[in-house]
Amino acid sequence: MIKGTNFIGSTPSDQGEETLFSYNPVDGSAFAESFAIASTDEINQAVDKAVSAFQTYQAVSPQNKADFLDAIADEIMALGDKLVERACGESGLPAGRIQGERGRTCGQLKMFASLVREGSWVDAVIDTAQPDRDPIPKPDLRMMQIPIGPVVVFGASNFPLAFSTAGGDTASALAAGNPVIVKGHESHLGTNELVSKAILAAAEKTGMPEGVFSMVNGGIPVGQQLVKHPAVKAVGFTGSLRGGRALFDLANQRDEPIPVYAEMGSINPTFLMPEKLGENPDALGKSFAGSVALGVGQFCTNPGLLVGIKSTALDTFSQSLEEGLTEVTGTMLNAKIAESYYQHRDALLNEEGVSHQGNTDKAEGNTARALTATVSATAFLENPRLHEEIFGPFTLLVVCESATEMEAVAATLTGQLTGTLVATENDLTQNDTVVKNLEQKVGRILFNGVPTGVEVCAAMHHGGPYPASTNAKYTSVGSAAISRFTRPISYQNWPDSLLPTELQSSNPSGVWRLVDGERTKS
Amino acid sequence: MIKGTNFIGSTPSDQGEETLFSYNPVDGSAFAESFAIASTDEINQAVDKAVSAFQTYQAVSPQNKADFLDAIADEIMALGDKLVERACGESGLPAGRIQGERGRTCGQLKMFASLVREGSWVDAVIDTAQPDRDPIPKPDLRMMQIPIGPVVVFGASNFPLAFSTAGGDTASALAAGNPVIVKGHESHLGTNELVSKAILAAAEKTGMPEGVFSMVNGGIPVGQQLVKHPAVKAVGFTGSLRGGRALFDLANQRDEPIPVYAEMGSINPTFLMPEKLGENPDALGKSFAGSVALGVGQFCTNPGLLVGIKSTALDTFSQSLEEGLTEVTGTMLNAKIAESYYQHRDALLNEEGVSHQGNTDKAEGNTARALTATVSATAFLENPRLHEEIFGPFTLLVVCESATEMEAVAATLTGQLTGTLVATENDLTQNDTVVKNLEQKVGRILFNGVPTGVEVCAAMHHGGPYPASTNAKYTSVGSAAISRFTRPISYQNWPDSLLPTELQSSNPSGVWRLVDGERTKS
Repeated sequence: MIKGTNFIGSTPSDQGEETLFSYNPVDGSAFAESFAIASTDEINQAVDKAVSAFQTYQAVSPQNKADFLDAIADEIMALGDKLVERACGESGLPAGRIQGERGRTCGQLKMFASLVREGSWVDAVIDTAQPDRDPIPKPDLRMMQIPIGPVVVFGASNFPLAFSTAGGDTASALAAGNPVIVKGHESHLGTNELVSKAILAAAEKTGMPEGVFSMVNGGIPVGQQLVKHPAVKAVGFTGSLRGGRALFDLANQRDEPIPVYAEMGSINPTFLMPEKLGENPDALGKSFAGSVALGVGQFCTNPGLLVGIKSTALDTFSQSLEEGLTEVTGTMLNAKIAESYYQHRDALLNEEGVSHQGNTDKAEGNTARALTATVSATAFLENPRLHEEIFGPFTLLVVCESATEMEAVAATLTGQLTGTLVATENDLTQNDTVVKNLEQKVGRILFNGVPTGVEVCAAMHHGGPYPASTNAKYTSVGSAAISRFTRPISYQNWPDSLLPTELQSSNPSGVWRLVDGERTKS
Repeated sequence: MIKGTNFIGSTPSDQGEETLFSYNPVDGSAFAESFAIASTDEINQAVDKAVSAFQTYQAVSPQNKADFLDAIADEIMALGDKLVERACGESGLPAGRIQGERGRTCGQLKMFASLVREGSWVDAVIDTAQPDRDPIPKPDLRMMQIPIGPVVVFGASNFPLAFSTAGGDTASALAAGNPVIVKGHESHLGTNELVSKAILAAAEKTGMPEGVFSMVNGGIPVGQQLVKHPAVKAVGFTGSLRGGRALFDLANQRDEPIPVYAEMGSINPTFLMPEKLGENPDALGKSFAGSVALGVGQFCTNPGLLVGIKSTALDTFSQSLEEGLTEVTGTMLNAKIAESYYQHRDALLNEEGVSHQGNTDKAEGNTARALTATVSATAFLENPRLHEEIFGPFTLLVVCESATEMEAVAATLTGQLTGTLVATENDLTQNDTVVKNLEQKVGRILFNGVPTGVEVCAAMHHGGPYPASTNAKYTSVGSAAISRFTRPISYQNWPDSLLPTELQSSNPSGVWRLVDGERTKS
């Protein structure tokens, strides 16, 4: 049963007078329940509880923390079809996709559980004392990562499970030892409540402290109040450039600035190199049409920019791409996103030099119609508005006159989550300047394939230079995401028995450490 | 011969019309040379050269980069007494101290050279492909740290060598593969020129690209122009809270925000626990007097706050501390710092409840007179002005009525570089709340000893939560400092032979890597 309350720690709470409703984007109908917007008092209570929980949660053993994360995954699975139905209803995404995303969400939680159980993620470094060193003795120094305190998580609309309430931000923040306060996403309020309850049930079953997790509903003012609260120590966000930058600015204006890890998407440029393009341009066009249309184009890694050199192969690619996108329609996540898609796409189509074929009519309701457009490199280079992301099933093909022009396009791009080279090895070496330029702009660089599909693993970097993210050093996907919510501390000459176990001389935790310059488990 | 020019790459340049002079703080006399303030054009040229140099410098082999760093150390030593004399003359610091600092500076350069030669600092992570994985194949992903581009370094006045022109920021940024532009510190312009020439000579001897290092002189406007330049990618700074915060704010207001790693000092609280204090309060008082007076109190880790519980032992400690500081005087780094010391110290002495004995008269010229003052915990807890740093040979003793009051003092502190427990093991366990509170506030926590003396090693964290630094995650001392000036990139399905050597399957670089979850060198 969905109640429409906030959760201040484990306590359902609906003191606020304002409410929100959740909508089915397919037909615009509202779900029955109203959701109480958190009051200022409720937000402050949630943070107070998180501060209090931090005192005990940071000292919970790795084993128990891992059990908590595993239990969240179990509780999410135990929600069964109820969760899948609600998430589909609130997002317009098909059941297969939501089931896959649920698997990914639980997989992430279990990955962080394993990481915490193994323990080496704390990056223990030990330099032992040299009491006889001349002219002054060397002290004993031992450093490791520790949690930082309450973390606020803003979920994304496009992944109602994997990048939302119990998504990668929440999982990594909890894994690091921090309490989490989720600002529920307004476009999947019911899904958010179900998952919040799963987290709270897991916390209770595994004996986690009250306040380790809270969830508040609301819009921008609720989010702002959370980010401004002096006891909040970091923010995780996935969404638009505008939203992410606003939170980043707010956090930096605090008396004590705090980090905002905002992943804000990008146009994910793909460079179609001559030799590879010539092999089978028709199949390539189909493949990219599929990537552009995937999830109705609502992925951060959607290939929004394709760059090729004028040729018959490029013509074939272009035609195949266009055919692959013609007649493709799909329900977008919510009315605002659908409206924004048409508005920004149509503004781009009206820019000088942009041409397109195919149907540009707005489809019924929240349905997006896929499209591709073409522009010359000259026009693209001169017009920064053509470099902006269109969130939805759209891609812009930039046609270069020469390899030199392609280099110029690569050099002019801003920060990106991904960059793709559709290329042979020979293409790569022949176009080294494009590759080098792209390496400096992206968080992940692909040799062939499509950028959609973000593997959850240790070697994944899902982030990139601004404006792809607010912090090029951190990923929001994969095990390295945990390091966003930690900081190092050095213990000097500390009594061995009172050190965290990861730093004690006998290494009772059995973690990998750097000891006097040697990497060792002993 | 000191010429008073900027260095735009290796080219001496003095196009600007305005000049600066360097002063001897002992007698206020000016050195003969005038130093040209960099013009807007010169600043832009320096950045342009850095951008251009980055293209080649980032690809220089680890061996050659290490040779460059070693050569800088050699060139600095080759300056001989000329450098020592000038640094002493511009800082008022004794020759022994400057010689020691020179050793530390060269030691840091050689440490980063070793780190780069060994190569594992790039944190290579490899997840190999699983083409048969169901339902979708797993791609091959390989991640490592790469350099980011031109870095601007602001030196500190209190370490004219180790935290300045060729100090830790420059050494770590160059080691990571980034060109560096130093904004020369106005209080040691000649020292800065000598060291700049040493760096340029090393660059030439080891064949580094033109523009890998530039140096510009000037005040705040020159610094601001550098931080605002779109091609600059990060900033290193050591200095005041006000200066660091101003650069941080400026960098965050850019269209593309960039990280500012500002280390801004702190009051480095020391808690005097009853059992340990009772052992030999007189000797402890002397030891802390020595730490407070060291370098005329001009260390970031100066113990500016001492906290104890009312007792006869604390009285003895206080008396011994006072005696140890009476009659201690010393020349401060420059006139501005000396003036600021008296101004801020005297303002604090006038705050309610603050008492002191001893001579508070301003000494001649730029000479500081050491002092200690006392205040009750009640007054301290109520007055945030008493929590601010007084840069110089001063410390405030906070007298608590009880252990509970001591806990309250620990809880109320802001971020600190260090926190020290003067304690027995029994004291630590008896006062667990103080310890836990302090751990959450500091970058380095000490069991006995004094916080001054910052070991350069892998396990050192010299930084801390705001306002000690603008980024609690990074250190400005020790080998981990290199990670400030890098970011990760993931290569997906990249051809093995075209990967950086650290990521190639056969591991030709022989670095430590995390391969499919296992840490290995093979």
